[in-house]
Amino acid sequence: MVLTASEKNYKKLCNLVRPAALLSSALRLIEWDQETNMPALGIELKTEQNKLLHELVHKQMTSKRYVKLLSQFIDIETGTLLTTDLKPNETASVKEMRRDYLHTSKLNSTFLKKFTEATTLSLDAWKKARKTNSFKLFLPHLEKIISLTRKKADLLGYQEHPYNALLDIYEPDTTVALLDPLFASLKAKILPLLQKVESKQDPKLENLLKNKIFPVEAQKKVCSDILLKMGLTTENHHLSETAHPFCMALYPDDIRLTTHFNEKNFLQAFLATMHEGGHGLYEAGLPKAHFGTPLGEAASHGIHESQSRIWETCIGHSKPFWNYFYPKLQAAFPEALAQTSLNDFYGHVNFVKPSLIRIFSDEVTYNLHIILRYELEKGFLDGSLSPKDLSELWNSQMQTLLGITPANDAEGCLQDIHWSLGLIGYFPSYTLGNLYAGTLFNSLTKTFPDWDKRITSGDLLFIKEFLNTHIHQYGRQFAPKPLVENLTGAPFTADPYISYLTSKYLIVN
Amino acid sequence: MVLTASEKNYKKLCNLVRPAALLSSALRLIEWDQETNMPALGIELKTEQNKLLHELVHKQMTSKRYVKLLSQFIDIETGTLLTTDLKPNETASVKEMRRDYLHTSKLNSTFLKKFTEATTLSLDAWKKARKTNSFKLFLPHLEKIISLTRKKADLLGYQEHPYNALLDIYEPDTTVALLDPLFASLKAKILPLLQKVESKQDPKLENLLKNKIFPVEAQKKVCSDILLKMGLTTENHHLSETAHPFCMALYPDDIRLTTHFNEKNFLQAFLATMHEGGHGLYEAGLPKAHFGTPLGEAASHGIHESQSRIWETCIGHSKPFWNYFYPKLQAAFPEALAQTSLNDFYGHVNFVKPSLIRIFSDEVTYNLHIILRYELEKGFLDGSLSPKDLSELWNSQMQTLLGITPANDAEGCLQDIHWSLGLIGYFPSYTLGNLYAGTLFNSLTKTFPDWDKRITSGDLLFIKEFLNTHIHQYGRQFAPKPLVENLTGAPFTADPYISYLTSKYLIVN
Repeated sequence: MVLTASEKNYKKLCNLVRPAALLSSALRLIEWDQETNMPALGIELKTEQNKLLHELVHKQMTSKRYVKLLSQFIDIETGTLLTTDLKPNETASVKEMRRDYLHTSKLNSTFLKKFTEATTLSLDAWKKARKTNSFKLFLPHLEKIISLTRKKADLLGYQEHPYNALLDIYEPDTTVALLDPLFASLKAKILPLLQKVESKQDPKLENLLKNKIFPVEAQKKVCSDILLKMGLTTENHHLSETAHPFCMALYPDDIRLTTHFNEKNFLQAFLATMHEGGHGLYEAGLPKAHFGTPLGEAASHGIHESQSRIWETCIGHSKPFWNYFYPKLQAAFPEALAQTSLNDFYGHVNFVKPSLIRIFSDEVTYNLHIILRYELEKGFLDGSLSPKDLSELWNSQMQTLLGITPANDAEGCLQDIHWSLGLIGYFPSYTLGNLYAGTLFNSLTKTFPDWDKRITSGDLLFIKEFLNTHIHQYGRQFAPKPLVENLTGAPFTADPYISYLTSKYLIVN
Repeated sequence: MVLTASEKNYKKLCNLVRPAALLSSALRLIEWDQETNMPALGIELKTEQNKLLHELVHKQMTSKRYVKLLSQFIDIETGTLLTTDLKPNETASVKEMRRDYLHTSKLNSTFLKKFTEATTLSLDAWKKARKTNSFKLFLPHLEKIISLTRKKADLLGYQEHPYNALLDIYEPDTTVALLDPLFASLKAKILPLLQKVESKQDPKLENLLKNKIFPVEAQKKVCSDILLKMGLTTENHHLSETAHPFCMALYPDDIRLTTHFNEKNFLQAFLATMHEGGHGLYEAGLPKAHFGTPLGEAASHGIHESQSRIWETCIGHSKPFWNYFYPKLQAAFPEALAQTSLNDFYGHVNFVKPSLIRIFSDEVTYNLHIILRYELEKGFLDGSLSPKDLSELWNSQMQTLLGITPANDAEGCLQDIHWSLGLIGYFPSYTLGNLYAGTLFNSLTKTFPDWDKRITSGDLLFIKEFLNTHIHQYGRQFAPKPLVENLTGAPFTADPYISYLTSKYLIVN
């Protein structure tokens, strides 16, 4: 087979970015190690090592040689393609490489230094503020972060709304114009649904497992088992324990997952394991041949979140799943569960109750927490809201959306770490993840009308394969919206997710 | 304070090597991770990552800029110092940097490629040969390794004996002319000692702990405890489990130790933990300020081994230690040990019996295994022995030295991995380690005449501090022999070690 000049050059381009991919993987190992094994004093060297490796990666991804090679395919300035004989996925790849390059080069080192300095201080202030429940302590830092983020939007460039520049980092091609109606329709449907569900469910199910003990060793076994059932293998993943569960892929064949065990709360560790397992399956399903290029990377944070949420919620909170898994659970925890019926357990897993804390909230209310944050971020960015008013804005919105009001800012506007880290524009990805998951789950159940019987019989692999085929294998070839629309053949809306919630909480249950 | 030009340049030199030190530490993390946590399929990326990082380190340590800066202090060709206003430790440092540079630059990439290819094949052949007990399968690879090692000696250069070139890699300034009489005097003393000990000890102590069970969770606790007693802290080390125990330092404040637990053999895990803990304390005691330069590195493999062996044998096999620790052990393993007396336990720990396998041998016979390998390696290198005759040479020497003959090559000349990896010249470091440990222990007991009372009372920290002061803090400022002689004020001989063995096994016991 003779390669064309473009094919040869594309191969060259991939070879050129490979060292950066290897160093980035080493960076992820260092980060994973920091959370899992590193003794406390190791941090001193790790910080320096991190900086060096980041610099080496940055150097390679902005080198003259790289830009020159990339410019043979695409005009960096305008985005005009300069060649027609690449395969469609390779064409998408060079477009994404340009996108990454523009992000990297537009955020110059002077700005990044300022931004990093500000977030280092603000993270520290946020920790203290949350501990002492003092919004005032955090306010000047939040103001600084917002003003720098506004500057970031200017550097990156945007159309219509500065928030679009931030959205574009995490969710390519996603804009305020798209999110506003999407989130509005979601809110309009969830609020009445919530009222109906609350009046319908049996209140005694909330504390069904209170005072039950789930020995940690048995939890570890059950969590390891479910990952294998989901389609990870003993040879491609590693599960350990950290305070906050996460997934980190060093390579598609080397997936590191963590969860957190608490002998008083089995569901927390288990559902977090399924959640991280979903992220892990995505990373494991990305094509190894394209490792280090956009085609070997996740389509977006929202799509990534859809992979964790489809497993955690659409599957892990479903009746067919517990039909299959609950007897195993009873066998693993006979003392805690022998007297509890499957129906009660299922009702407990899906118990709906507005919570002050986003990360503890159920499927029905979760997205209301995100919508609240989205509106605030958007307002701060375009100046229509002021950070000074955050506490009041937060509390009144909590009352409007969820009918509850925080007793203090620690369980209110200071609960999330994101803003202190400068992560503005990230929250919508969580809700997009849920909406994408709803759409994917709808397609899955249409493609496999016997999906519930399969799951009840203990077959979960068809889910992994479905996601491999329709999502994982493409990497970043498609932006999130077209990726999902390719599968459904219909425009992306919140409807499938709303139908999923409605049918689950009002009809089936 | 105004820095002189030399001081400024030395600082520059240190800053220049720092990135290589950070990358080397990342390499060690990758290696540690490979042995402890990595899922099997992760190896594919790791191999490539390893190669890249090694190349980056090599590039930095042979760069024109580095050589130019180093050449301001020392003539690379001749080793003549070109400046007189460096501190003594800095002078030693630039000498060692030159030594390292010469090693690196003399072994050109063509040779290294050949050597690596040969060892990759020979490691594979050795594994098969040992499994199928077929020396013939390994012989052609051994011949190749020896001929390449002979070539390596030529490239490195040597005086008197080609083996000296190899010794110099692991033990600076150590030669055949030094080892021959040292090892001869050792052999001459050990052989009669062995006979006397064997006739003196109670044979029933050999299997004292047979069929006893030591629950692994309790072993973990005891092993963690002893490391803290030795002077490591929860903030600077991490202990985990691997098939073969090892110690790897990512940084003086980030020491990774492993041991191997077996519920039927407590002593194995425990003494391996003390051994690796000794290595760990050395690494933790190296000056952080000199990290990445010779002053922040261990003096030699032999000195490193002395640090593990002084803890494992001189302390961990001593009566005062078990006076202190045995009651704790009985409390941790009441079922296994309640009926066993301290004296019997101590006799068991120090039971002497010639073994076919080096790594399972006791203090008295261990060095005979090394002397056997040393004589063989030397003979192969100067051509006076032929690898073809290895099996016969091995078996007859085992009979002469230890009075036992292997039933097959798997438990004879194929038992060690070293030669298959091209590690020729390394074995003497093990015995040098024991001899250095004997010398250091002799000094320790002279410096602290109440050493036994201290240990019996549970004080081990004075040992760590003694080794910090006399060994660790110097890094590679002194070659192994002068380092030890600085402390004792007398020429280094095997005598202190022989006295230690004799007094322990014939007088005290």
